[in-house]
Amino acid sequence: MGVGKYKPTGRKYGPPIPSCADYPADGNKLVGSLREALVNAGLRDGMTISTHHHFRNGDLIANQIFDIASELGVKDLVWFPSASFPCHNPLIKYLEDGTIHHIEGSMNGPLGKFCSEGKMRGAGVLRSHGGRYQAVQDGEVHIDIAVIAAPQADAFGNANGVNGPAACGLLGFALADSQYADKVIVVTDTLVPFPCIPWQIHGNHVDYTVKVDKVGLPEKIVSGTTQITKSPDRLLIAELTARFCDKAGIVRDGFSYQAGAGGTALSIGIYFGEILRERGWKARFIRAGSNQYPVAMLEEGLVDYILDGQTFDLEGVRSMRENPGHVNTSPFTSYNYHSKGNFSTMVDVVILGATEVDLNFNANVVTHSDGYLLHGIGGWQNCLFGKCTILPIPLFRDRIPVIRDEVTTLCGPGELIDVIVTERGIAINPLRQDLIDKVKDSGLPLRSLQELKEEAERICGVPRKQEFEDEVVAVIKWVDGTVIDCVRKVKA
Amino acid sequence: MGVGKYKPTGRKYGPPIPSCADYPADGNKLVGSLREALVNAGLRDGMTISTHHHFRNGDLIANQIFDIASELGVKDLVWFPSASFPCHNPLIKYLEDGTIHHIEGSMNGPLGKFCSEGKMRGAGVLRSHGGRYQAVQDGEVHIDIAVIAAPQADAFGNANGVNGPAACGLLGFALADSQYADKVIVVTDTLVPFPCIPWQIHGNHVDYTVKVDKVGLPEKIVSGTTQITKSPDRLLIAELTARFCDKAGIVRDGFSYQAGAGGTALSIGIYFGEILRERGWKARFIRAGSNQYPVAMLEEGLVDYILDGQTFDLEGVRSMRENPGHVNTSPFTSYNYHSKGNFSTMVDVVILGATEVDLNFNANVVTHSDGYLLHGIGGWQNCLFGKCTILPIPLFRDRIPVIRDEVTTLCGPGELIDVIVTERGIAINPLRQDLIDKVKDSGLPLRSLQELKEEAERICGVPRKQEFEDEVVAVIKWVDGTVIDCVRKVKA
Repeated sequence: MGVGKYKPTGRKYGPPIPSCADYPADGNKLVGSLREALVNAGLRDGMTISTHHHFRNGDLIANQIFDIASELGVKDLVWFPSASFPCHNPLIKYLEDGTIHHIEGSMNGPLGKFCSEGKMRGAGVLRSHGGRYQAVQDGEVHIDIAVIAAPQADAFGNANGVNGPAACGLLGFALADSQYADKVIVVTDTLVPFPCIPWQIHGNHVDYTVKVDKVGLPEKIVSGTTQITKSPDRLLIAELTARFCDKAGIVRDGFSYQAGAGGTALSIGIYFGEILRERGWKARFIRAGSNQYPVAMLEEGLVDYILDGQTFDLEGVRSMRENPGHVNTSPFTSYNYHSKGNFSTMVDVVILGATEVDLNFNANVVTHSDGYLLHGIGGWQNCLFGKCTILPIPLFRDRIPVIRDEVTTLCGPGELIDVIVTERGIAINPLRQDLIDKVKDSGLPLRSLQELKEEAERICGVPRKQEFEDEVVAVIKWVDGTVIDCVRKVKA
Repeated sequence: MGVGKYKPTGRKYGPPIPSCADYPADGNKLVGSLREALVNAGLRDGMTISTHHHFRNGDLIANQIFDIASELGVKDLVWFPSASFPCHNPLIKYLEDGTIHHIEGSMNGPLGKFCSEGKMRGAGVLRSHGGRYQAVQDGEVHIDIAVIAAPQADAFGNANGVNGPAACGLLGFALADSQYADKVIVVTDTLVPFPCIPWQIHGNHVDYTVKVDKVGLPEKIVSGTTQITKSPDRLLIAELTARFCDKAGIVRDGFSYQAGAGGTALSIGIYFGEILRERGWKARFIRAGSNQYPVAMLEEGLVDYILDGQTFDLEGVRSMRENPGHVNTSPFTSYNYHSKGNFSTMVDVVILGATEVDLNFNANVVTHSDGYLLHGIGGWQNCLFGKCTILPIPLFRDRIPVIRDEVTTLCGPGELIDVIVTERGIAINPLRQDLIDKVKDSGLPLRSLQELKEEAERICGVPRKQEFEDEVVAVIKWVDGTVIDCVRKVKA
C-alpha cells in the first residue's frame, strides 16, 4: 500500500476496570515467590506471557517463568518478549516439549536458528519496538500475564531500572505490558519502602510483587557491539557518513541524531562530536541506546539531551541516574505509529545497520543471506522515519555481497531509506533529489547502487540465491501492524 | 452499599486509534490561535470541553475558550474543569446565554452560588480528583476537546508546569484529559525547541499546539489559605491534632502524612517537623499540595520525599523544579479508585477539613449549613482512605455549630473518618477501638461527638435545619463513580 497508506480504525484496547477494593490497602502486594505470583495470576494453558529485555543477555527471570510453567504442567504458552537473547537458549527445550507454543518477538541467535529450521510449532511474529507497543495498545496482542523484572521496586509495584545492583537504566520496553496486561507481576532483588522513586513503572498497574535474590547480571547488559570499530574499512565508512552529513548541511547547531550502538555508528558519533567541538555548536539531542560515548558528549556540554530508550552500558545507567538531561523514553513516546506523532520523525539523521539492501533501497535486518533468521527488528523500522536515514554498510561480509537484486526478507521499504554509505562510495536514493543537490559538488564519492553492486560482484562473484521451503516460520510486521514480509523455512 | 462494595465491570475507555500518518512529520503542530485550534478540533454544539486548574485563580485560558465558542455561536457545551475559581465568574454570562449548558466539576464561590440558586440549566456533577480520573478512564465522561494550558511546551505538544514565567509546578490534573480526550490542544506562552523536558504531558497525545502571550498569572497560583493560622483556637486544634498523632504512635521514624494547605493543617505540619527534628527522625514522605513549609522540611532533610499533586506557592514550584525528592504525582497514581491500588491508602495520617460532621462521623465538604454549594471536593474523598483520617475542625463557625444531627450534603462516609479534633476535645470513631486504646491514658481530652455537639449547642443554640426546594442542582459522586448524595436548590 505504501508507507502511511494503511489507516487504523477502531479503538485502543481497554483493559478490564480494576477496583482498589480488590488490592491490599497497605499497598503490600508481595507474595512469597514467582511461582506463587504466577499461580495467583491464573497461569494456564495457552496464555500469553510477556517479558522485557532491558537486561539483554543478563536476564535471569524469563527462563524461570517457563521452568515454573513446566513444573506446573502448563502447555502451549505464547512467549511475548520485547526481545530474546542467547541467555534464553534453555527455552528451546520448552519449545520442543510444548510448554511454549511459539515466540512473538525478536529471536537473536540460536532461537532464531531453531525457528528458521521450522522447529517451532507456531509461526514467530517479529515486530519493531514501536510495533510491539502498537500491537498491545490496539489489542492485536492480548497479554495475559506480564512479568517485569526490575532492578528496584517497592511492595506496591512502583519500579525503576536506574537503582539497585542490577541497574539496567530504564524499563520502557515493559510500559505497554504494565498498562495493558490483565495481570502484572513485578520481580525485583532490591525492595525499598514506598515510594520507589523514580517510578518508571507505576505500581497502580501491578497485581503482585516478588522479591528474588538476583534479578539480572549487570555485566551482561553491556552489548558486545559497543566498542568503536578498529576495522579500516569500517572507519572509512564512518568517516564518509559523517562527511556526508556535514556536506549535506545536516550537522548544524541544534541538530539531532541517532547513531545506534554498532562499532561503525559509534565512530560516526565521535566524528559528529569533533565537528560540534570545533565549531562551538551544540546538538539538541541524541536519540539513543546510550553508552559511554553519548554520555561523554552530554557531560562535555556538546548536546542538551540524550533521549534514551535503552542503556547499552553501565555509564549509560549511571548517567541516566545522575543527569537530568539524560531522559528515559519508551516505545510509546519514541516509536508508536498509532499515536498522534512520535519522536522518530523529528531526528535529523538516523544511522542504522542492515544485513542486505536491494537496488530499490529496500533493506533487510532480520535474516542473513543464507536465509537464517538471526536478528530482531529492534527500533530499526521505527527509526527509518527520521528526516534522513543512512545505512552505512560494507559492500560485502565474508565475501558475500550486501547489495542484492532482492533482499531475502523485506523489513524496511526503500522509500524511507535515503543514503547507503559503503567503503567504495555513497548511493543516494533518487527520491531525495534535495540531498543529491546538496552534495553534488562536495567531492564525496557518489555512486549508484547498481555500480556498487557490480563492483562487489566483480570482487566476490554473483551470490547464489538462497532457496527455501514453502513453510512460513515467521512473519515480519510493519510499524502499523500490517504484514510486510514473511520468513520461510531454510532448505536443509 | 458501603465503602468498597460496588465493583466495576467492563473495560476502560479506548480512545480512537490515531495514526502518525495524520500528523506533521516534523512534529510541528502549531496553529495560529486558540480559535483556529478549536475550529480544527471540530468544536460544535453539545461538546464536552475540559480544562485543568493548576493555575487556580490565575487561569487565563478557560474564559477565552468560551469567548471563542460564543463568537462562533456554539451552544450547549459542557465544561469539565478539574476545578473552577472566582476568576471564572465571567462564564456566568455563558451559562445564562446557553453557550455553556452546565459544569461538571467543582464550583468554588460565585459559580457554586449560581448553581445553588437553580440557575444552571443542567445539574452540576461534583467529583473528587480521583473520581474525575476514574470517570474519564471508565468512559463515564467523554471529553471531546481538552485544552491544556502549559507554562512550557514544544511545538509537538510535550509540556510541563515547572518552567516558564507562569510556572505552576505540574500538570497532573490534565493527565486523564490528555490520555482519553478525542482532541487535545496544548496552549503555552513559552515554546522551546523539541524536546520540552520534563514532558509531564506527552506530545504523543496532542493534536494542536498554540502560542499565546500569557498563559496564567503565577502570583494568583498561591492559595490564600497557605498561611499558618494565627487564631488561638485553631492553634489549639493544631496542637491537639499533633499530640494525638504522637500519642497514638502515628508519628514515628519513617511515617507519612498529608496535611493540606489550610492554616490549621500547616500548623500541624510545623508540629510534626518539631517532633522529627527533636527525635532525630525522618518522615518517609509528605503527600502534598506543597508550599514553603513542606519544602523547607525536605530541604532540611526531615523527609525523604514530597509526593505532590499541586503546588500551592512558588516555593513549591521552585522545589519541584530543583529537588529530585519533590516528585510530581497525578490523580492516576494518587487517587484513582478504579486501579490496582493507589497511594492514598498508604499515607499514615491525613488531615482534612470539613464544613460539617454528623454524629456518625459522616462529613460534608461542599455545602455550607445555609445550603449553598461553595466548595469543590478536591482530593478530599480520596484522602479519606488514609490509614488514619483526622478532621480538625472548630466546634462552630460564625456561631453555627459544625457538628450536626445530619450533614447538609454527604460527601464522605463516617466509616472512613477516624478522628474529629476540636478546640474543646477529641472524638474518636468507635470503629477505631485500636486508636481509642492507644490514647486512652494519654491525658488528651477525649469526648464523644454527642458531647461536643451538645457543648456547641449550649453556646450557639440548636441550629435551624436548612430547607430546600425539590429541584436537584448538583450530584456528588463517590470515588467509584456511584452517586453518594445530591445538592438541592436553596429556598429563596
